[in-house]
Amino acid sequence: MFPRSYILALLVVFLVRTPCVRADEGMWLFNNPPRELLKKTHGFDATDAWLDHLMHSAVRLNSGGSGSFVSADGLVMTNHHVGASALQKLSTPAHDLLADGFFAKTRTQELKCPDMELNVLVNIQDVTQRVNAAVKQGTSTAAAQIARRAIMNTIEQESLKATGLRSDVVTLYEGGQYQLYRYKKYTDVRLVFAPEKEIAFFGGDPDNFEYPRYDLDICFFRAYENDRPAKIKHWLKWSAAGPKEGELVFVAGHPGHTDRLNTVADLEFLRDWAVPESLDRLRRREVLLRTYSERRAENARRAQRELFGVQNGRKALLGRLAALQDPAVMHAREREEKALRGHAGNAGAQSWDQVAGALKIERQISVDLHMWEGAGAFQAKLFGIARQIVRLADESEKSNATRLREYRESNLDSLKQQLFSSAPIYTDLEALKLADSLSLMVEKKGEDDPLVLTVLDGKSPRDRAADLILHCKLADVALRHKLVDGGRAAVSASDDPMIRLARQVDEPARALHEVFEQQVDEPMRQAYARIADARFQITGTATYPDATFTLRLAFGTVNGYGSGEQHIAPFTTIAGAYPHAAENGNIAPFALPQSWMAAKDKLRLDTPLNFICTADIIGGNSGSPVVNRAGELVGIIFDGNIDSLALDYVYTDKTARAVSVDSAAIIEALRKVYGAGALADELQKRG
Amino acid sequence: MFPRSYILALLVVFLVRTPCVRADEGMWLFNNPPRELLKKTHGFDATDAWLDHLMHSAVRLNSGGSGSFVSADGLVMTNHHVGASALQKLSTPAHDLLADGFFAKTRTQELKCPDMELNVLVNIQDVTQRVNAAVKQGTSTAAAQIARRAIMNTIEQESLKATGLRSDVVTLYEGGQYQLYRYKKYTDVRLVFAPEKEIAFFGGDPDNFEYPRYDLDICFFRAYENDRPAKIKHWLKWSAAGPKEGELVFVAGHPGHTDRLNTVADLEFLRDWAVPESLDRLRRREVLLRTYSERRAENARRAQRELFGVQNGRKALLGRLAALQDPAVMHAREREEKALRGHAGNAGAQSWDQVAGALKIERQISVDLHMWEGAGAFQAKLFGIARQIVRLADESEKSNATRLREYRESNLDSLKQQLFSSAPIYTDLEALKLADSLSLMVEKKGEDDPLVLTVLDGKSPRDRAADLILHCKLADVALRHKLVDGGRAAVSASDDPMIRLARQVDEPARALHEVFEQQVDEPMRQAYARIADARFQITGTATYPDATFTLRLAFGTVNGYGSGEQHIAPFTTIAGAYPHAAENGNIAPFALPQSWMAAKDKLRLDTPLNFICTADIIGGNSGSPVVNRAGELVGIIFDGNIDSLALDYVYTDKTARAVSVDSAAIIEALRKVYGAGALADELQKRG
Repeated sequence: MFPRSYILALLVVFLVRTPCVRADEGMWLFNNPPRELLKKTHGFDATDAWLDHLMHSAVRLNSGGSGSFVSADGLVMTNHHVGASALQKLSTPAHDLLADGFFAKTRTQELKCPDMELNVLVNIQDVTQRVNAAVKQGTSTAAAQIARRAIMNTIEQESLKATGLRSDVVTLYEGGQYQLYRYKKYTDVRLVFAPEKEIAFFGGDPDNFEYPRYDLDICFFRAYENDRPAKIKHWLKWSAAGPKEGELVFVAGHPGHTDRLNTVADLEFLRDWAVPESLDRLRRREVLLRTYSERRAENARRAQRELFGVQNGRKALLGRLAALQDPAVMHAREREEKALRGHAGNAGAQSWDQVAGALKIERQISVDLHMWEGAGAFQAKLFGIARQIVRLADESEKSNATRLREYRESNLDSLKQQLFSSAPIYTDLEALKLADSLSLMVEKKGEDDPLVLTVLDGKSPRDRAADLILHCKLADVALRHKLVDGGRAAVSASDDPMIRLARQVDEPARALHEVFEQQVDEPMRQAYARIADARFQITGTATYPDATFTLRLAFGTVNGYGSGEQHIAPFTTIAGAYPHAAENGNIAPFALPQSWMAAKDKLRLDTPLNFICTADIIGGNSGSPVVNRAGELVGIIFDGNIDSLALDYVYTDKTARAVSVDSAAIIEALRKVYGAGALADELQKRG
Repeated sequence: MFPRSYILALLVVFLVRTPCVRADEGMWLFNNPPRELLKKTHGFDATDAWLDHLMHSAVRLNSGGSGSFVSADGLVMTNHHVGASALQKLSTPAHDLLADGFFAKTRTQELKCPDMELNVLVNIQDVTQRVNAAVKQGTSTAAAQIARRAIMNTIEQESLKATGLRSDVVTLYEGGQYQLYRYKKYTDVRLVFAPEKEIAFFGGDPDNFEYPRYDLDICFFRAYENDRPAKIKHWLKWSAAGPKEGELVFVAGHPGHTDRLNTVADLEFLRDWAVPESLDRLRRREVLLRTYSERRAENARRAQRELFGVQNGRKALLGRLAALQDPAVMHAREREEKALRGHAGNAGAQSWDQVAGALKIERQISVDLHMWEGAGAFQAKLFGIARQIVRLADESEKSNATRLREYRESNLDSLKQQLFSSAPIYTDLEALKLADSLSLMVEKKGEDDPLVLTVLDGKSPRDRAADLILHCKLADVALRHKLVDGGRAAVSASDDPMIRLARQVDEPARALHEVFEQQVDEPMRQAYARIADARFQITGTATYPDATFTLRLAFGTVNGYGSGEQHIAPFTTIAGAYPHAAENGNIAPFALPQSWMAAKDKLRLDTPLNFICTADIIGGNSGSPVVNRAGELVGIIFDGNIDSLALDYVYTDKTARAVSVDSAAIIEALRKVYGAGALADELQKRG
C-alpha cells in the first residue's frame, strides 16, 4: 500500500532519463493538462468540461490519501487503508470497526469521524511572481526565507478571507513555481461502510506491493453540511462493467511525493543516511508494536492501524533502498546529471554545489533535528498535543506573516480540528512508545547531554515516561480547550508535566527548525528552481512537476506484463481469492472473512476483482478514482506493485503497475456479501 | 529464555556492591565450592562425594546450554529450547519436530543429531603459573598475546594426547587464573523425546522472562558410544515429589557470561555503543525473519529456531539496556569503583586507564571488526562454511602453538563435526539474509569502500547475494570434505564463488582479529587480572569468578516474592495452564497443544508445573538440573524472570528468580499426555 505518514524524500533511479515524456508518463497539473499527448498517443480529447468534472469530483483526505464523490448525496469512496485511521478512532474494545467492518443501514446510523477533513479543489491561481517579488535578490537565505514565509502566509490569509475557501500556496517544480490552491472543505464526515480488514487487506504484509491481488480495499464516507448530507454537483457515475483489457483509463488523485529531479548528491544523502536511518526507526517501532500486540488481543486492536503504517513504510523504503544501492542505477544517474550540467552553463552549475552544501548542513543537524524538532525523543500523542498547545499560545501573539507555517491564520481551523479530536488515547501504548523514544534519545545524544539531563529529570527513560504519561491530563479535550483559550498565560501557569516538557525543549527545537528552513530548505529551493529552469529549456513547459500531495491527472492502459510463464494477466477474479486463501492454510493474513466464505455460492465468481494499469502513481494516490473516457468510475487505486516503487524516481511502464479494485467487484460484494443493496443502488443511480 | 548465541559482554548494575557475598549468591567453581557458606546459611554439608556425583552428572551441550544425565543408559535431559537447534536440523517440510514434538518408543527409533556434542567435566587443573610464566613481564602486548596463545594451545594439545579428553584452558577472573578443564565428550547423541513447541514455549515471546509460567520446556537425548547407549556411572536420581516451598536446592550448570567485575568505562561502552548496536541488528533480523516467515508456512518452519533466538536475545538485551540507562544504577557503580580504586593504590589505578584505552581501540575498530571478521556483512551459513575451509587450509600448515585458537589441534575434531554437519541449508533464506547483510555493509561502510567494491563485484547487494548463493556448491558435504582433504592447494584452485569471497576478505579480517587480540583483549586481560587481585585483597579467595560457560554450582531456596496483591507464589500448577490459554483466546502463542486439551481429564491438575528459586543463574544455565540435599533431581532450569536480567551484573534475591520445570510435572506429562510410560519408568528407576 502506498505510505503517506512515513514518506521521506526518497527515490529510485532505473533508467537514464530521456528529455522527453514517455507514453503514459506524468502526474499532470489540472491547469496544465497533457492535451496534446492524450490526443497523439490515445486519440482522446480532454475537454475543459471533462477535466472540470473530474477535478471537482476528486477528494483529498487529511489522513493522507485520495477519494472521490460517487453520489449526489455526498457519498465518498476511498480505500479501507486510507479510512483506517478513522475506523481506528471510532473503534472500542467491544467494537473493532477496523477489523470487523461497518455498515450503516440508515443515514442516522452513519458515524461521525472525530477529526476527518475532506478537500475538494475549486481553482488554482499562479502566484509565482508575487512570491518571488517579495524575496529580494541578493539577500541572505535567512532573510529570503522570512520574506517567502511572510508572503505565503499573507496570500493564503487574504484568499481565505476573500473566498472562504481553504487556501494553500503550493511549491511546484521544487521552487520553480508557486500556485495558490483553493479547496472546499468538509469537516463533518461520517462513516457509511467498511468491509472486514481480512478482505480489505487480504494477503497482509506478504502480499502488500505485490500482484496478483484479491483485495476489496474500499471504504465509504459521507460528507455532511449543516447536519445533512452534502448536495454535490460533481460526482462520478458508476460503471457496472469496469474496464476492459487494453482500455485507456485516467486517475485523478493526490500523489504525495516524488524525487524525479534530485541531484546525485541528494540521492547519496538518501542512500547513505536518510533511508537507512528511517528504516532503523521503522524496524524498531515494528518490533515494539508487534511485541505489544502479541501480549493480548486488545493490544493488537489498539496498535493495528499504526503497525500497518509502519510495516507498509518499511516495505516501501526497503524497495527504494535496494534501488539506491544498485551501482548500475547510480552510475546512470551520474551520467544524466553530467549532461544536464552541461546544458546549465557555469552559473547554473553552481546550483548543484548549493544543493550539496545544504545537504551537508542537513546531515550535521539531522540527529538533533529529528530528536528535538521532529519529536523523535517524544513519541507519544500526548507530547504532540502539548507541543501544539505551547506553540499555538506563542504563535497566536505574532502577526500572521511572521508565524511558523503550521500556525498561519488560514490553517488554524484545520489545526484545531486535529488538536481537539476526541480520538482515544491509550496510556499503556503511550508510555511504551515514549519510554522507547526516550531510550533512543539517550542512545543518540548520550546520557550527559544537557538537554537529555533536563528531559530525564534524574530518572531512567522507562520511569520518566511512566511518570509523564501518568500525570499528564491532556487526554481530556476540555482541558486542551481551556489551555488554548487561556493563551500564553494559561500555558505558562500549567503544571501539566507534558506541557512543561514541551516548553523545556521548545527553544532548542525552534532553533533547529530555523536552521533547517534558512540553511537547508531555502537554499535548496533556490538551487532546485534554477535546475528546474535548465530542464524547462530542454523539455519545454509541456511537463509536470514532482508530486506534492496536490491533485494530479495520470492515465494509462489496463495491461499485464511479462511473457511466457512469467506473464501476469491484468485482471484477477473473485474466484481466485478462495484458492489463494486455501494455499496458505486459510490462516491470517490469508484468511478470508466468514462473510465471503458464506456468500461464495451466491457470488458471480468470474467478476473481475483487481486490475492493473500503467498510470503514473505513487503514495498518496491510494483511493484515487480510476475513470474511463466517458468519465465513469471503473475502479479505485489501492496499491502499486514492487516494481512501481521505482516511480518515485522515474516513470516506467515495463513492469511497474498501479493496482486497483474493479468497480464490478464492488457492486457484487456490496449486494451479495454485505446485503448493502441500498448503497449499491446509490452508487448506480444515474443522475 | 536465556540466550547464548547473542550473548555479548553485557551487564546490569543494580546496587552498590558490598565486598561480601550475599546469602544465596554465587556461581561457584566445583574445585572451590562454598562449603563454609552452605554450612553457615543452610546447615548443609557439601561432601566430596556429593559434589563429585553432581559434577559428573552435569552435561554441557555445544548448542549453548546445560543438561544432566538422568539414567544409567545415557539419557540426558535438557530444555526444549536448548535442544531446539537439533530439533530444527532433524526436521523436514513433512515432519516439523520442533513444532510437533517427537517420541521414540523404542531405541531404534531414536534419531541421531547431525552435529551435537556433549561435554562432561572430568577434572580441573590449575595452570595459572605455567601460562603466566610463558608471558614475559615487560614485553609488548602483541608479544604477550602470541606467547599466551602458544602456551594455551600447547597445554591443551599435551593434555588431549595424554588423556584422550577434550581439554580447554579456561580464563577465570578475567585473567586472574587459568585452569585446564578436561571433559569426556559424546558426539553420537540421539533424540529421544520432545514435547510440542506450544507447551514447551507456552506464552511465547510475551511470557518469555516472565513469571508465573506454565511451560514444559524439556527435551530428552541419549548419549551413545560404539552405537550403543552409553553406560553412565554418575546420573541423577529422580524425585517424584519435586521440591517444597522454602526448600534448599542446588543448580549445576554452565552460566555463559556475566559482567560483575566490569569497570564503569566498560559499562559505558556497553550502554553507549555495544548494546544499542546489537539491538539494532537483532531488530533488523527479527523483522527480516518475521516477514519471511509470514509468506508461507514452510518458511515459518525453516526460520523458527533462528527467530526464537533473535527474539530471545532482543528481549534480554532490552532489559539490560534499561538498567544501563538508569542514572541511579550508573551513579552507584561509579561510587563503588571509586572505593575499589582507593584500595588498589597508584599502580593498580593504572589498570582502569588501561581498560579505558583498550575500549577506545575496540570502539575504533568495532564496525570493521563486526563487518569483516565477525562476518556481519556475510550472514549466510554457506559463508561460514567457506571461511572455515579457507582458514583450516591456512592454519593447518602452521605449528599448533601459532594457530588461531579456534584452529588449535585439540579443537579440530569438534570444529570438523560442525563443518561436516548434514544439517539442512535453505538457499532462499540464505540469499535473503546475505542480501540484507550486504546491504548493511553498504550502509555502514559506504558504496565506495574498496573492500565493498570487491565484495559486490559491480552488482547490487540483492543481485550479488542471489548470485553467490545460486552458484555456491558447499551445501554438498562431500565437497567440503574434498576441499579440506585437499588442503591449501585445493582451496586455492576452487572456483566456488563463496570460497573466493572468503579468501578475498580473509586478509583484512585477520588483520582486524589481530588488532583486537593484541590491542584490546590482551591489555584488558592484564588490567582486569590486576583489578581482580585488588578485589581478592578485600574478599579473600572464598569467592567465584564471572561466568565462562564452564560448570558452576549455584544454590538457593524455593521462594516467591512481593507482598499483598503483588505476591508471586513460588509454584504454578498444571491446572493454571488452561485458564492462561483461555484468557488469551487459545491463540498462538497462548494455544495449548491438542494433546494437553485431550488429556486434561486424566491429569492430576494440582501437580506443580513450574517453580522459582533464588539460585544465582544466567544465560547458559538453561537445562541445568535442580537437585535437593539428597542430590535427587527436583527440576530443570529454563528461564529467569525479568528482574533476573540484573544478575548479569550483581546477585540479588529481592525479586530476581530462576524459573524451573518441576520434576513432578514431567512424570505426569510423560505418562498421561504423551503415553511415554517407558521413558518415565527409565527416569524413576532407582539404580
